[in-house]
Amino acid sequence: MNKRELDTPYVLIDLNKVENNIAMMQTAANEAGVALRPHAKTHKLPELGRMQIEAGAIGLTVAKLGEAEVMASGGIPDILIAYPIVGVQKIERLFALAQKSRITIAVDRFETAEAISNRMREDRTASVGVLVEIDSGFKRVGVRPEDALALAQKIDALPGLTFRGLMTFAGQSYDAVDLDGIRSIANEEGVIAAQTAAWMRSHGLPAEIVSVGSTPTSKFVARVPGISEIRPGTYIFGDLTQVSLGVHELEHCALTVKVTIISRPSPERAVIDAGTKVFTMDGADSPIGTGRGYVARYPGITVSWFTEEHGMLNLPPEAQHLEVGDTLEIVPVHCCAVVNMFDEVAAVRDEEVESIWPVQGRGKVR
Amino acid sequence: MNKRELDTPYVLIDLNKVENNIAMMQTAANEAGVALRPHAKTHKLPELGRMQIEAGAIGLTVAKLGEAEVMASGGIPDILIAYPIVGVQKIERLFALAQKSRITIAVDRFETAEAISNRMREDRTASVGVLVEIDSGFKRVGVRPEDALALAQKIDALPGLTFRGLMTFAGQSYDAVDLDGIRSIANEEGVIAAQTAAWMRSHGLPAEIVSVGSTPTSKFVARVPGISEIRPGTYIFGDLTQVSLGVHELEHCALTVKVTIISRPSPERAVIDAGTKVFTMDGADSPIGTGRGYVARYPGITVSWFTEEHGMLNLPPEAQHLEVGDTLEIVPVHCCAVVNMFDEVAAVRDEEVESIWPVQGRGKVR
Repeated sequence: MNKRELDTPYVLIDLNKVENNIAMMQTAANEAGVALRPHAKTHKLPELGRMQIEAGAIGLTVAKLGEAEVMASGGIPDILIAYPIVGVQKIERLFALAQKSRITIAVDRFETAEAISNRMREDRTASVGVLVEIDSGFKRVGVRPEDALALAQKIDALPGLTFRGLMTFAGQSYDAVDLDGIRSIANEEGVIAAQTAAWMRSHGLPAEIVSVGSTPTSKFVARVPGISEIRPGTYIFGDLTQVSLGVHELEHCALTVKVTIISRPSPERAVIDAGTKVFTMDGADSPIGTGRGYVARYPGITVSWFTEEHGMLNLPPEAQHLEVGDTLEIVPVHCCAVVNMFDEVAAVRDEEVESIWPVQGRGKVR
Repeated sequence: MNKRELDTPYVLIDLNKVENNIAMMQTAANEAGVALRPHAKTHKLPELGRMQIEAGAIGLTVAKLGEAEVMASGGIPDILIAYPIVGVQKIERLFALAQKSRITIAVDRFETAEAISNRMREDRTASVGVLVEIDSGFKRVGVRPEDALALAQKIDALPGLTFRGLMTFAGQSYDAVDLDGIRSIANEEGVIAAQTAAWMRSHGLPAEIVSVGSTPTSKFVARVPGISEIRPGTYIFGDLTQVSLGVHELEHCALTVKVTIISRPSPERAVIDAGTKVFTMDGADSPIGTGRGYVARYPGITVSWFTEEHGMLNLPPEAQHLEVGDTLEIVPVHCCAVVNMFDEVAAVRDEEVESIWPVQGRGKVR
């Protein structure tokens, strides 16, 4: 099927660009001598997870237990759930998952680890790895680095868990004003993580994993001595937020939303069949002056505002020939959020649709 | 099942409050002598659509064809698709739908209506009603009122379609600063719609439907002479945006998100298991100083910021006893957007879960 035949709105994933993005990040990890564990919250697709593994990734990262279940069922052998698992229902699911797959979780509180340990020791048919999550400046979750050793020692003593090291996420890199700012945050993230891990090891703890990095910081933090793995996610597609940060090229953005013009109220205005229920309101306006998206082939179009199911475009003179029924492809501000709005996406090579993939990880809020 | 047993994040729908909200809007419509055609984009649930019909609504409004298909399958007998239907695939679906259900569509362009008419006349087993959509100041879709008569006359002449009147949506009411501002916009919306319909009738057109109103404007515009129906949606739940506008009481907000505290990084900070992939970033911060949501029973808590799967709370002294594992219920900024993130929701009466409803209309972007 040609991509022309896809009704809109539809998410198109350009496989040539995806393969290139996967290869570039794998090369960066290889050259820095660190492992790559991509974050699957971006694509939510086992198919792309397997492509990342085949290219050399050691496993995947996920945000939610439900995403881990999907990825494990989809053949991913090694999964880090970079999220606190809290509550008896989730612990039961974690136990079932750990019986089949190699699972590591992030923990920032002794009682969270203890509750999981208690379940694991009930019948000793499963074990999970544990990373202590430290806060390297984002102020989201994670213990202070100075508290990490004590927590690690207590976790290391718990049955049914295997202490494996630490992780951190320097999300403040999204607020950096330029690449130097990102580099500086990445270095700080890396140094804090590496030093804390070394401190743990000097006390006899097997802190083999030192896991850091998002798409903005990964290529920088990977080169900090003592780092063992990076966890970028968005790099597989790229979006206007990453372009804005200077860490992804617009022409390498692999995910677009195909839309149709449904109204032409005036020569300068067009309305498309996608609004916040497709593009979401995540993230800041495009840095390249195109508003809430970038319209391929028409850099002069501004995606000016959304309602739930309508997107309003301002058309420059060279785009005013566009009429109702014409289709456009739009690079979004935040690709991870867009994938999460769709039940299925189209994997496209050149003009051909190679596959329609159900977004198996979509809506896995629990 | 008690609602305590629901794992988080989970959407809770308070049936007592929903029934009250449904009754209040139906009463307002009845007292004004207009029909009520609630917008189902808010709840996306045939179960609630049927409750609205049973309470007196004449049918439902939807935004997308896919929502219409879900509601028709769910037993809703009369549906307005308040959206331009463009493209051969959608027209074919519209044809199939119109064979089974009474469907009316909104059109703001002759060619859009003509393409649908062409399909309907191919085999004359279905017909759809048509409303001309006019722009009453929102500048989204719709023809100018002065162009509505000419469009209506051309549509009225098309076979397979039944011209039935006009509709408009005064979305600019969401930018009003107070109730007087909303009333003024509602009056203008109503007068423009009623006058345009009267003008059509004076030219012999059967403009029987004059359809206006959203949750902010409905109670005002319903009283403008010449209006035949109102289309509010959000009123069934209410949310912080409607509270901010002064058209919904906080204690009548029927939709909350049950969440769990998963981290307590400091005495003043807690992190919950829901971020933008549950609450979205739609709409402005809460007007009552509580940020991106309102935490029931803890009015002093601020929902300060979200990442995709984390929500950050600032805790006042009276909430600092909250610990990891404790659950909270949060009224969102924009309820329509939240429902759309979930595969299922819980219908709750007092403490008991009466039903788990799949969100059948979720993700119907096409």
